[in-house]
Amino acid sequence: MVKITFLPDNAVISVEPGTELLDAAREAGVSIQAPCGGKGSCGKCIVKIVDGHIESDSQGILSSELEADGFVLACKSKVINSDLVIEVPRQEGREGGKFTDADEDVSLVRHELLPNKWNYDPLAVKWNIVVPEPELEDGLSDLDRLTRRLQLEWGKKKFIYPLEVIRNLPEVIRKEQGNITVTLIREPEQYHVIHIEPGNTAVHHYGIAVDIGTTTIAVRLVYLPLAECVATENDYNDQITCGLDVISRINYARKPERLEELRQRVLNSVNKLIERVCKVKEIKPSDICNAVVSGNTTMIHLLLGINPEYIRLEPYTPAVLETPFLEAGELGININSNAWIYFSPNVGSYVGGDITAGILCTSLATDSEAINLFIDIGTNGELVVGNNDFMMTCACSAGPAFEGGGIEFGMRAALGAIEKVYIEPETGKCSSLTVGNVKPVGICGSGMISLIADLFLTGWLNSAGKLNRDRKSDSIRTDGRIASYVIAHGADTEHGKDIVISETDIDNIIRAKAAIYSACSMMLEQIGITFDDLENIYIAGGFGRYLDLDKAVVLGLVPDLPKEKFNYIGNSSLTGSYMVLVSQEFREKQIELAKKMTYLELSTEPSYMDQYTGALFIPHTDMGRFPGVSRKLMSSGDK
Amino acid sequence: MVKITFLPDNAVISVEPGTELLDAAREAGVSIQAPCGGKGSCGKCIVKIVDGHIESDSQGILSSELEADGFVLACKSKVINSDLVIEVPRQEGREGGKFTDADEDVSLVRHELLPNKWNYDPLAVKWNIVVPEPELEDGLSDLDRLTRRLQLEWGKKKFIYPLEVIRNLPEVIRKEQGNITVTLIREPEQYHVIHIEPGNTAVHHYGIAVDIGTTTIAVRLVYLPLAECVATENDYNDQITCGLDVISRINYARKPERLEELRQRVLNSVNKLIERVCKVKEIKPSDICNAVVSGNTTMIHLLLGINPEYIRLEPYTPAVLETPFLEAGELGININSNAWIYFSPNVGSYVGGDITAGILCTSLATDSEAINLFIDIGTNGELVVGNNDFMMTCACSAGPAFEGGGIEFGMRAALGAIEKVYIEPETGKCSSLTVGNVKPVGICGSGMISLIADLFLTGWLNSAGKLNRDRKSDSIRTDGRIASYVIAHGADTEHGKDIVISETDIDNIIRAKAAIYSACSMMLEQIGITFDDLENIYIAGGFGRYLDLDKAVVLGLVPDLPKEKFNYIGNSSLTGSYMVLVSQEFREKQIELAKKMTYLELSTEPSYMDQYTGALFIPHTDMGRFPGVSRKLMSSGDK
Repeated sequence: MVKITFLPDNAVISVEPGTELLDAAREAGVSIQAPCGGKGSCGKCIVKIVDGHIESDSQGILSSELEADGFVLACKSKVINSDLVIEVPRQEGREGGKFTDADEDVSLVRHELLPNKWNYDPLAVKWNIVVPEPELEDGLSDLDRLTRRLQLEWGKKKFIYPLEVIRNLPEVIRKEQGNITVTLIREPEQYHVIHIEPGNTAVHHYGIAVDIGTTTIAVRLVYLPLAECVATENDYNDQITCGLDVISRINYARKPERLEELRQRVLNSVNKLIERVCKVKEIKPSDICNAVVSGNTTMIHLLLGINPEYIRLEPYTPAVLETPFLEAGELGININSNAWIYFSPNVGSYVGGDITAGILCTSLATDSEAINLFIDIGTNGELVVGNNDFMMTCACSAGPAFEGGGIEFGMRAALGAIEKVYIEPETGKCSSLTVGNVKPVGICGSGMISLIADLFLTGWLNSAGKLNRDRKSDSIRTDGRIASYVIAHGADTEHGKDIVISETDIDNIIRAKAAIYSACSMMLEQIGITFDDLENIYIAGGFGRYLDLDKAVVLGLVPDLPKEKFNYIGNSSLTGSYMVLVSQEFREKQIELAKKMTYLELSTEPSYMDQYTGALFIPHTDMGRFPGVSRKLMSSGDK
Repeated sequence: MVKITFLPDNAVISVEPGTELLDAAREAGVSIQAPCGGKGSCGKCIVKIVDGHIESDSQGILSSELEADGFVLACKSKVINSDLVIEVPRQEGREGGKFTDADEDVSLVRHELLPNKWNYDPLAVKWNIVVPEPELEDGLSDLDRLTRRLQLEWGKKKFIYPLEVIRNLPEVIRKEQGNITVTLIREPEQYHVIHIEPGNTAVHHYGIAVDIGTTTIAVRLVYLPLAECVATENDYNDQITCGLDVISRINYARKPERLEELRQRVLNSVNKLIERVCKVKEIKPSDICNAVVSGNTTMIHLLLGINPEYIRLEPYTPAVLETPFLEAGELGININSNAWIYFSPNVGSYVGGDITAGILCTSLATDSEAINLFIDIGTNGELVVGNNDFMMTCACSAGPAFEGGGIEFGMRAALGAIEKVYIEPETGKCSSLTVGNVKPVGICGSGMISLIADLFLTGWLNSAGKLNRDRKSDSIRTDGRIASYVIAHGADTEHGKDIVISETDIDNIIRAKAAIYSACSMMLEQIGITFDDLENIYIAGGFGRYLDLDKAVVLGLVPDLPKEKFNYIGNSSLTGSYMVLVSQEFREKQIELAKKMTYLELSTEPSYMDQYTGALFIPHTDMGRFPGVSRKLMSSGDK
């Protein structure tokens, strides 16, 4: 028997030699798409052999570069006499060219941390009932008969109805002789009937999870009866033309008409994505009756149209941390206008609901013994350290570099984004892998991390972020005082232009990683522990599945610790929002966790600047902090 | 000492002869206006000497007709050696020419039935607090600090905030260093903060009581800190151009765009009256934070934009009886957009919140022994019989005649409406008293009752409603088959036209009174009692203060019972709404009473038509039912 380990799920199975890899994966419960039915014609079942040998024929579907990198077609590969470690790449969306599967991020989260799908309990439920017909002198209105019928089902709760439901009731209740479907929002004391439809429409029941980042916004459509993620779309936040980071947005919002402009821009972004997910599944927006929105505190203020100015001014006071439920209609979100919008609770001025959603995806939410670190890398970097008993949190300004902002060819992890590179040590030549395996368009965060770490390890970049002008390479160009590195030549790119990264771009990334690393280090110092005391480090952010944590260590973005301590959990804000959407237990847990978090204001810590300056090198001025990287450098120097 | 009794308050005082009547009234606590300061120049302090003699000089201010009727100026009258009974007429509005005092109807209700003003408890309260300033690292948002401060005051309640309040919070809370005023709606489980303002604005706190009738709408502005009625305005319901009664409105509303038209029309009517009461007191509509709306079931459906069609069709099922709280903004009522609108509960398809509000003004709400009858005379007549333990209710269609609708010179009890007449028995000549003591414009309900009863008693009208063509009078004209009676000649009227009432008009009124009387009689029959078993009869309706119940008996509108059993309580729907507005206890009582009421559908009672036909005479075909009227006829015949 041969043992096969499938990454990133860590699913392990033993099979007979000769078994087809696609069958082995299915047996292990690992989903690999093969729309062509295993004929080797669609190329969708591409996997990477990380360790071991296999008998394979890629039938000319894969480029020689991909083959060289160890990629094979699972349907055309047979297990031979060698244990295997197989990496299953992020699957392309089923709807042609989408860069991410609907539940990709969810699949990154450890199974035991997720809500139990068979016992899920969403805030919004859809229920089919038959209301008895009216009788002469029964003294009951249509609403009375509906309430009595609902109380039979759900007990003597108080039922609350918005005006629209009462308006529609006489027609809806008579259309199919009292057979109607109600959408309920269940609060402990009272149930809200937010929507009614004639007939049995209980299967048309959706919710959305929304992550609002400073740079990127993501919307995930969830089929609530099965707690299933059915479509995910993301795009830039339309607000970015009004400032790249939170502080510039707050400054922009100082005039009321500009605050309103920002509100409209973020609403437009969210509504466009909702339109897209609805189109993908061909559903009506009115079938979406619940939304969970997570974002940083400033983004939520702007979405609500609240002046965020006092977040920026000492003592940094937000107007609201725990946003009450709001209705989609009053907020301007284009789903069912009576849908309830739940906002993940914010913790402080710069630690928002994206973080309280994010930690739901980690053992910080469940573990009360070991100390864990959670790092969410976005335009702001947010950190949480602690366990289920005590948590400290802080934020730092990383800037939009990791999401492609402020980098000439930077982009988010969308179709055509370079997300992994390989540098030939001798020539400095770069080969790359893009999202969707198409011609490259630009480079995303994981690509930049991979690129800079590799350039540094191969000696083409020094620890101060300067390219090596002394070694001869076609890939390095000098334009005045600034040198650039060519990642892909125009002949090979989508737009025909060279894709390059300049020393200025590299400097932006170093500043971003320095902000995050020094904030981690600062916070641990505050609570009196070291990196070695950490049991798990969770890295969140919209990097795509190829984030190479080894390379993130080399860059000095994250501490130099054993690889098994790291978990990359993708867009945990979106995943956490999904968890809250399908489970009231997780919603309660989130509120409880938010209350436990102590917020540390870094800007008032005098030594933070020193820590930051020390981190403005690759990996750090103090190489003693990165012994693993030192060893790697030595061994690459040896070669 | 001389004893003076002031009507209708029944205030009694003993004074020395020589005392000025105005002073005596003040001492007795009876409010008589004298804007000219007692110079005898404004004529506002007019009162009527019902019994006794007084020394008076009306200084040419009063017409000789008024003087002949016993009217004097209180400021120019001195008590002599004779006990007095003085009737204080309804006072004109303080703001020039308003036809009704703000709290006229309230004054008609027996004192012990009204809420105790010193212990009142409105749903909406306004509260001034100082919220502590934010501190670095206190981890509290503006909203958190506000909630904590409110919980200090009101206990660990759950506080709920609409989006607008949260939006305004950062600016409002900082404008006067945390000194703010909140407007709260207090539900048992949770408090809703519906409005916030900087500084102490607790004195700017108003509510409105709204009565929506098929023909007439009334709005009363209430100063909530003192539970004081400060302005009342009423006008026709703009919907009357779409049909005079409930059934024609329901028919009109069958197309969605016409339903919307009716909704807009009633909203416009209400909003115009709100504008007027606000103008009178020079207050901002946003200072009105609570409204109680009472109306018949159809009117409420139309205001809410609900198709009322199924009210008209068997089994006569309304969409809603107990309307939930709604916000002014979503309803379209132009007060504070977050103000809560409470609807008096409806009982059945044709017995609405105007009746559950109305019975609060009667001993049916308090008395569990004696059996009482409540009659609300509007376009629909609604009746309630019973006591605090058991109540039966029904409705009949009276038509708009008593409100002036369908009567050539009919009008509501507004400025210039003839509300009381005197017929000279020999000549048939009519002298009249108008609302506001101005030249007559038309005739209102109380005027018509007084007129028809007097014409009948003086033999100018027979019991079938035909004018006496045989006796010679300048006041009777015959135009073909229809005769008319001249109430006022053009020379004496506001518009220069003769004010007349035709036999067709009289027939309309007879039909209206027959509908009401036969419904009363029918309902008593159903529960097996007779009129003699009744302890009190409460008559409600917008007749103005001069409704003469003796004359209503002569007309056959109400049963022939001892005068002391009758109570005219004015617009009890408006008064009951006021009571609910200022007292949560009354709101609870109203809900409890609504539940106790059993609704009788008259249209399905086969014998109702017989009863109705029998009542189409003055006072009735069966004179045995009206022994008092028979005696009166005999005695007037004797004269």
